[in-house]
Amino acid sequence: MNDEIVDVPSGVAATRPTPLPGDPVLRRLSLNQRTTANWTAEEAIEGAARVGLRSVGLWRDPIAETGLDTVRHLLVEHDMRVSSICRGGFFTARDSAAFARALAYNRAAIDEVEALEAGCLVLVPGGLPDGDRDITAARRRVVDAIGELAPYAAERGVVLAIEPMHPLFAADRGVVSTLAQALDMAEGFDPSVVGVVVDTFHLWWEPDIISQIARASGRVASYQICDWITPFPSDALLSRGMMGDGHIDFAAITAAIAATGYPGDVEVEIFNADVWAAPGDHVIATMARRYAELVAPYLEDQ
Amino acid sequence: MNDEIVDVPSGVAATRPTPLPGDPVLRRLSLNQRTTANWTAEEAIEGAARVGLRSVGLWRDPIAETGLDTVRHLLVEHDMRVSSICRGGFFTARDSAAFARALAYNRAAIDEVEALEAGCLVLVPGGLPDGDRDITAARRRVVDAIGELAPYAAERGVVLAIEPMHPLFAADRGVVSTLAQALDMAEGFDPSVVGVVVDTFHLWWEPDIISQIARASGRVASYQICDWITPFPSDALLSRGMMGDGHIDFAAITAAIAATGYPGDVEVEIFNADVWAAPGDHVIATMARRYAELVAPYLEDQ
Repeated sequence: MNDEIVDVPSGVAATRPTPLPGDPVLRRLSLNQRTTANWTAEEAIEGAARVGLRSVGLWRDPIAETGLDTVRHLLVEHDMRVSSICRGGFFTARDSAAFARALAYNRAAIDEVEALEAGCLVLVPGGLPDGDRDITAARRRVVDAIGELAPYAAERGVVLAIEPMHPLFAADRGVVSTLAQALDMAEGFDPSVVGVVVDTFHLWWEPDIISQIARASGRVASYQICDWITPFPSDALLSRGMMGDGHIDFAAITAAIAATGYPGDVEVEIFNADVWAAPGDHVIATMARRYAELVAPYLEDQ
Repeated sequence: MNDEIVDVPSGVAATRPTPLPGDPVLRRLSLNQRTTANWTAEEAIEGAARVGLRSVGLWRDPIAETGLDTVRHLLVEHDMRVSSICRGGFFTARDSAAFARALAYNRAAIDEVEALEAGCLVLVPGGLPDGDRDITAARRRVVDAIGELAPYAAERGVVLAIEPMHPLFAADRGVVSTLAQALDMAEGFDPSVVGVVVDTFHLWWEPDIISQIARASGRVASYQICDWITPFPSDALLSRGMMGDGHIDFAAITAAIAATGYPGDVEVEIFNADVWAAPGDHVIATMARRYAELVAPYLEDQ
């Protein structure tokens, strides 16, 4: 695999070889398992380990399929961190029974983050309830829900990470639309309990993104990367690209993240049909090369 | 047509009949000709007149196909205003020859706006040049271009209207992503020369949209409406919906526009394959009903 220099999925020739296991450049790189969507949690942990990664981002359904205890043992066996667990959130429901169910779901997610000592729980806020057009009220309910969950998370040492999502998803997935807005919400809480996710796909266009990242100092719970590609793919949920295939300035955004003192992992999360169709080992090798070239040089400690 | 109460394209039953020609509710409603995309400029003017509208939004290519003089005569014949002409802009090129060509194109567009006494020239800013990832610099070039064009527009009494576009289009179409950012740019210029377009599709999700519209008082050069629909259509360029079919709170946004004292037309601009496939007369009838129900009651003078 390491002498394979054609990249997935773009076919663009890489300018450097795949970093080998043990290369310090890989120290903070994390594979979000949705980048290799056909893999189970077990396969993702083992696949990441083969390439020399020390961190993975996991999703709740695959964790349940593999089994929480098995996942925990695999992590120990491969000396692997969990940079984040996706996902909590979806707590914009207007009726009180649905709101209570969402809180219960989130408490179970918090328990799982504690059990796997994961870096944070990613909160995907949720969209507008059916037939509801009051986005301002939905945003208020996000803050209400975090207020309900914060003490429970604090007791367990779990960080809740609000994920501002591209405005493309404001109606049906995430009503928190900018880093500025996520910080407005987070700042009402202790930074050791409520932070934010900075995902390049969601935020690269934000007019003052560099200064908002500076403002997020001490609150960045997760740094997730992938590219914004054009033409925009026909399935909006699968529209993310491999770093370097699109329009995002990873140098500028990564340098801003580094300047906050963020010490955590850099997680690659790519929802893309072409990436998913490629063999997982090739995807990780490409991701490691692109990361080493486009991202790692701008992290202070590389 | 006026006893046809099934709506296009949703099939949702209307709660009121189509307003008849002469109904004062139609006084400020404008048909953007891209809503009836299969019509020529002549057909759009005549179709709008048949339903009793007094205003249309025109595009440059169809104007050229029909001929500027013919369009002018048709407007006089039907006592029809032009609420806007689309489009100028696309002036984010980095190399000086391309930048100069863009300015020349925009001066010709300004001449056309003057000739048709249109309400404004809609400026679609343009995206990132090929291979360029510096969105901050591209945004600066937008301001530079407007600075070049403003004196030419002022001499001709033409209003340049910066259109902030949904972040979905930041890479390939419009690097100005929020009303706040458009106002930051516009505020360096005389409000009688440089204004903004408030298009509900592009801006409905903006965290402080209501206060930004208040800030835009005296600068709103065009109010354009259509809905944000889900699931998101497979062609991002054709993803707009008829008012009422989606998630936008037209009452809140329209009331904010009215509170600025905006005296102009309300232009319906819908890029949608289903709308385009329907007969133009039905589309306009539906649009007039939805406008009368969802938008007009929130304009102060209705």
